[in-house]
Amino acid sequence: MSCQANRKKLIQQAEVMSLSEKHLKYLLQDDRRIEKFSLNGGGMFFDFSRQRVDSQTMKLLFELAEARQLKEQFRLMVKGEIVNTTEKRAALHTACRDFSNAMPEIKNVRDQIRDFSQKVHSGEIKGSTGKRFKHIVVIGIGGSYLGTEFVSEALYAYSDKGMDIRYLANVDIHNFGKIASQIDPEQTIWIVVSKSYTTAETSANTNLAYEFMKQKGLDPAKHVVTVTSKGSPGDNPANPVLACFYMFDYIGGRYSVSSAVGGVPLSLLLGYDRFEKFLKGAEEMDNHALTALPDKNLPMIAALISVWNNNFLGYPAQAIIPYADPLCKLAPHVQQLYMESNGKSVSKDGEPLDVQTGVIIFGEPGTNAQHSFFQLAHQGRVFPIDFIGVIHPQYSQNKSDSVSNHQELWANLLSQPMALAIGKDDPNPAKAFGGNRPSSTIILEDLSPENVGRLLAFYEHRTVFEAFIWGINPFDQFGVELGKVLADKVRKEIAAKNKESDYLFDKTDAISRFYLETLFSTPPPAPPRNGEGSVAA
Amino acid sequence: MSCQANRKKLIQQAEVMSLSEKHLKYLLQDDRRIEKFSLNGGGMFFDFSRQRVDSQTMKLLFELAEARQLKEQFRLMVKGEIVNTTEKRAALHTACRDFSNAMPEIKNVRDQIRDFSQKVHSGEIKGSTGKRFKHIVVIGIGGSYLGTEFVSEALYAYSDKGMDIRYLANVDIHNFGKIASQIDPEQTIWIVVSKSYTTAETSANTNLAYEFMKQKGLDPAKHVVTVTSKGSPGDNPANPVLACFYMFDYIGGRYSVSSAVGGVPLSLLLGYDRFEKFLKGAEEMDNHALTALPDKNLPMIAALISVWNNNFLGYPAQAIIPYADPLCKLAPHVQQLYMESNGKSVSKDGEPLDVQTGVIIFGEPGTNAQHSFFQLAHQGRVFPIDFIGVIHPQYSQNKSDSVSNHQELWANLLSQPMALAIGKDDPNPAKAFGGNRPSSTIILEDLSPENVGRLLAFYEHRTVFEAFIWGINPFDQFGVELGKVLADKVRKEIAAKNKESDYLFDKTDAISRFYLETLFSTPPPAPPRNGEGSVAA
Repeated sequence: MSCQANRKKLIQQAEVMSLSEKHLKYLLQDDRRIEKFSLNGGGMFFDFSRQRVDSQTMKLLFELAEARQLKEQFRLMVKGEIVNTTEKRAALHTACRDFSNAMPEIKNVRDQIRDFSQKVHSGEIKGSTGKRFKHIVVIGIGGSYLGTEFVSEALYAYSDKGMDIRYLANVDIHNFGKIASQIDPEQTIWIVVSKSYTTAETSANTNLAYEFMKQKGLDPAKHVVTVTSKGSPGDNPANPVLACFYMFDYIGGRYSVSSAVGGVPLSLLLGYDRFEKFLKGAEEMDNHALTALPDKNLPMIAALISVWNNNFLGYPAQAIIPYADPLCKLAPHVQQLYMESNGKSVSKDGEPLDVQTGVIIFGEPGTNAQHSFFQLAHQGRVFPIDFIGVIHPQYSQNKSDSVSNHQELWANLLSQPMALAIGKDDPNPAKAFGGNRPSSTIILEDLSPENVGRLLAFYEHRTVFEAFIWGINPFDQFGVELGKVLADKVRKEIAAKNKESDYLFDKTDAISRFYLETLFSTPPPAPPRNGEGSVAA
Repeated sequence: MSCQANRKKLIQQAEVMSLSEKHLKYLLQDDRRIEKFSLNGGGMFFDFSRQRVDSQTMKLLFELAEARQLKEQFRLMVKGEIVNTTEKRAALHTACRDFSNAMPEIKNVRDQIRDFSQKVHSGEIKGSTGKRFKHIVVIGIGGSYLGTEFVSEALYAYSDKGMDIRYLANVDIHNFGKIASQIDPEQTIWIVVSKSYTTAETSANTNLAYEFMKQKGLDPAKHVVTVTSKGSPGDNPANPVLACFYMFDYIGGRYSVSSAVGGVPLSLLLGYDRFEKFLKGAEEMDNHALTALPDKNLPMIAALISVWNNNFLGYPAQAIIPYADPLCKLAPHVQQLYMESNGKSVSKDGEPLDVQTGVIIFGEPGTNAQHSFFQLAHQGRVFPIDFIGVIHPQYSQNKSDSVSNHQELWANLLSQPMALAIGKDDPNPAKAFGGNRPSSTIILEDLSPENVGRLLAFYEHRTVFEAFIWGINPFDQFGVELGKVLADKVRKEIAAKNKESDYLFDKTDAISRFYLETLFSTPPPAPPRNGEGSVAA
């Protein structure tokens, strides 16, 4: 079937699914619905029985997958074709966890990470005053830290190397000031993550970190590690560091957790072996996504349903609600991964699209979310939800007669998707629930490194499958450029004023001038804290 | 003008504002635009020059304010009328910070908080083994902690009492397990926050905390504080605690930061005086909202524009992007405050509404957000943004020739709203920016306790003004009830299975049975950590 014909049919099908007899409360009366609309694959379980779909909808969506050649597009990506056409690059994040056919340069970096992290843990590598490292500070922004933060939070319970981790992303001095007040600089290892090593925020924060170390009488060469491109300013022998790990241009920032970007900090925090287990979990999901047929392919089905909800049922946002507190940074990670990948208006050939692409992604862990924005989910504007559950928690709890905390969590995990789907009539309209609000449920056996790897890869693949459906390039991000260009101009104005206090902002537009004058208008009061870290922890 | 006539005019006006000559890039060519579309009030500056409005739009919106009697509705709320009609309660959060006309019971609680926090800080009140308190753990969920967390993060730089703070909200054992591994129980004070003292999550976590203390040989009566309603199970002399502070039924959870809910933990963390300064900032904004005319009233204008963007321009979501890292928890707080208040489908008289009410709120601090989801903001789906800037940061930075981190932050704060508004043509469609994407900018002099109070009150009032426009009740939350009812049933099934291992889940629906069997299917593997806190920190 042609794409056009398929689209027409899906539009008609959306009308069918909006008939009152297709309300989820009726669809769910089929006792075999969960068998029909759920599956296992790649080490995960995915239940879409509470999505607003029936067999005919799925049939049309699989035809869409066929028409858009999703399997083939994915295969070309994994094979290393130039799928990032606008930037003329491959997108080989899957190569980071391909153990059956490892690329030598990737294997070299992994070996280097194993060796380095073991030496830090054994105490062979120490800070410049001879103390063991205890605090990890990752300096990096966006894709240089969000994925790593997701994984380090998810696996915090496994952090038994005597190290903790912090993220210095924001150029805001508050971010540095807070971290500086919390660490012992003699025991701190700084990991600077930047492919180009010229990212404005990361450079500014790296400069602060260097000043801070010098002020404390420490030798930065014994405290700094870089993760960067070969030959970048972060890979310069004139500027010695403890170690430099390479990033490759065929791995984009938001897909880079399984490269050295995540590998170095996560191996320090958790031990290299756990990082490798994490990669092996991701590899399993990669193989699943690559080989499973469309109707058995978890990330592909998730992508098809996401596009169905977005373009055919008209929902502009999606929430990710893990009933697992360690997954608290999954939503911020997927928010970047997905919204930066799929927030596009043109096809990869530069043609304007006639449909909306990526939705807004947000989320918080359950049950917290129930006590926050779920009022709106139940009785206000509809948005589809990914619920995520974990069978076995990372922490044990003493047996008691009654219901354990983890069971209490599951009681809620089971009830929320059902309440959203079926609703409830009530003579008091304020207490009535319309229902028919769609959700999926993902179940992981536990929060092991492997399963966190599977979950990461699942969302990566779901994201690119959606892009392949729309025919957009999920690997570029030209939309961030205009802000950078304007910021350069403003920065020059500020620098000019710093130099000459009577400089007038008469070349800028009226609004920018107003704000620049505001910034320079009043003498600063004494701040409560000193940003160079001279405060007590 | 009648509401109907006004609405018709606003619909027409939305068409006018969608004409190409009303693109923001043209509106911004007026050098006086920022003068016309910005104002100071309540100690804050609010700039809506980059919203898609003109003088005629604002005129119609002020007529809407008039037609909906916003000033009068607000006055009745502050006066203590039963504005929460469905629950037959007043909504008197403003009374918590009314120093000119203090209600005796509120003043009593404040005095008690001052006294108690001073005694903890002086060491007069200690733990059961005679050690001073160092760690605060707030046990509470939703409105019992989100606002407090926002303020404690915002004012972290002022925390000079030698105490830190953690939030135990989620019933998930991971939340407790992580906290238990990080604190010294002898030095921990637990603050249980629950109006009814029967919230499922809070009760489960309180039980865990009690078991944990007993296991450590500590006397909970010397480590626990309650914030609850008079006469609740948390206010029972048979169950002695260090202190009990009362909450009143006329203050809803999501509006309770300025009551004892925020007052007790914030006074312990920051000192009572700073909490009072925070209240005084909020009071200033309260007075502004109460007395300023519509066209000078910041939260009212913000609410009118929000409704304009939502109901007339059709944007379903809004982002809050503070260019100030300490405001990192503002978006999660407002997400609850706003989405729980305004996620409704019926008027306060129970009539179904023919417009959508609350939008989806999300956000992360800038510049982080620029490296995360701003690709979509610039080139994908449009959502209005509140940018927030702070003139003087909380941390000082050594002078250097070049641009400081804080100035770098401002270069971005100035550039992003402008880039979104004006866009950029480009022969390469992938590098073109449509522009016309609306935003407001809020400026605070600094992040002092007073200004954080102003910001809190601003968002509270913006929220209720929107509810007053739609005629909904922003103070109830019946939408959370159905999930609770279903969870009760599931909990009983789990308890039955805990009692009898051969219990069959044959009374439940097929999907719930599937998940219950899954939960009980496999023996748990050894978890990496012990939830009772017997792990090293």
